[in-house]
Amino acid sequence: MEITIMKNILDRNNNKADEVRELLSKKNVLMVNIISSPGAGKTTLLERTIEKIGSDIRVGVIEGDVATDRDAQRLKRFNIPLVVINTEGGCHLDSHSISKVLPLFDLDRLDILFVENVGNLICPSQFDLGEAFKLAVVSTAEGDDKPAKYPMLFRDAEAVLLNKTDLLPYTSFRIDNFRSDLGKINAGIPVFEVSCTQGYGLDSWYRWITGQLSSSGRSA
Amino acid sequence: MEITIMKNILDRNNNKADEVRELLSKKNVLMVNIISSPGAGKTTLLERTIEKIGSDIRVGVIEGDVATDRDAQRLKRFNIPLVVINTEGGCHLDSHSISKVLPLFDLDRLDILFVENVGNLICPSQFDLGEAFKLAVVSTAEGDDKPAKYPMLFRDAEAVLLNKTDLLPYTSFRIDNFRSDLGKINAGIPVFEVSCTQGYGLDSWYRWITGQLSSSGRSA
Repeated sequence: MEITIMKNILDRNNNKADEVRELLSKKNVLMVNIISSPGAGKTTLLERTIEKIGSDIRVGVIEGDVATDRDAQRLKRFNIPLVVINTEGGCHLDSHSISKVLPLFDLDRLDILFVENVGNLICPSQFDLGEAFKLAVVSTAEGDDKPAKYPMLFRDAEAVLLNKTDLLPYTSFRIDNFRSDLGKINAGIPVFEVSCTQGYGLDSWYRWITGQLSSSGRSA
Repeated sequence: MEITIMKNILDRNNNKADEVRELLSKKNVLMVNIISSPGAGKTTLLERTIEKIGSDIRVGVIEGDVATDRDAQRLKRFNIPLVVINTEGGCHLDSHSISKVLPLFDLDRLDILFVENVGNLICPSQFDLGEAFKLAVVSTAEGDDKPAKYPMLFRDAEAVLLNKTDLLPYTSFRIDNFRSDLGKINAGIPVFEVSCTQGYGLDSWYRWITGQLSSSGRSA
């Protein structure tokens, strides 16, 4: 009974996701669905990325949060198109909420639309928002066992950003364990080892994300 | 429509939770529902706690995991009653799954039953398992804004364990911000500042949890 209901909701979500994807494709906007545990560094990644590529590429952000607009407050200084979706307790964004806020953006003047999903390593991975792809962010402080223990996101993601590498000397995280588990779930997936607070390792991420823009036929 | 369905599921869950609570109360077993983000340190907390109190107090554990039995493998060396609930993608435990596994324990020979919920700061807080109380675990690496951004758990919890204090020198976490936000949501809630990997600050936690046992009329 519960499973049937869930399937209906998911089907309805998928239909709307296709509409969103079609619209964004027509407008040449690359939408990236960023998913992680709470506090893995999604907002700091956005701050760094907008600082670096924001003058050449027109970036917009949708901030998904259970409560507060604190993440959006951190991004206000960039003067970019920015919308907050407050889920009021909801554990993920869905394509309907994305569809509702898209008219608030001028899609003709946008190259990338980053969606910072609600901080949750499980539920958001089950909802297609109409994105071009999902980006998984994981912090070294969470432990190297996360791909094995939460495989759904890592199976679906187009790339993984391993954040907080500056904390590696103070944790028991082993990158070989992490990469080995990840390889069994999603062989060949690009992994960027970075520290967003310290600014380490981000150049290859910047190159990759802007490359996604040009490879999908959008102007960079 | 979706909200109505959700309410039915929750009502059904609550009924079973009351049954679980009644049974555990009759058997003098204290069930603690431990909730955190992925990788905040729930399993390491259990390892430390069983090491410290496990010779005086009869401890059992229910391990909730999306996939794998890695956490349970880490606890096997203690030779305690230990059951894994694999949710196969599900984002939380519920009282029905608890009710189903309780017959696997000899409740007459148990003082505390720790439930390590699925790593998720949102969904598990909405499901009453029939526990005596919820314990929130949060890591300093997640940032000091978690109580404000994910208020549901922190509002309901009986205590907060702030873990990974050994990482404080390497993060921007400010304990005064954390405590101030938490105080607005749940004034007077006990907060234990600890490092489970290093063993710092755990004595007051051990005293508190064994105190819960005696104050609830159970033999310690």
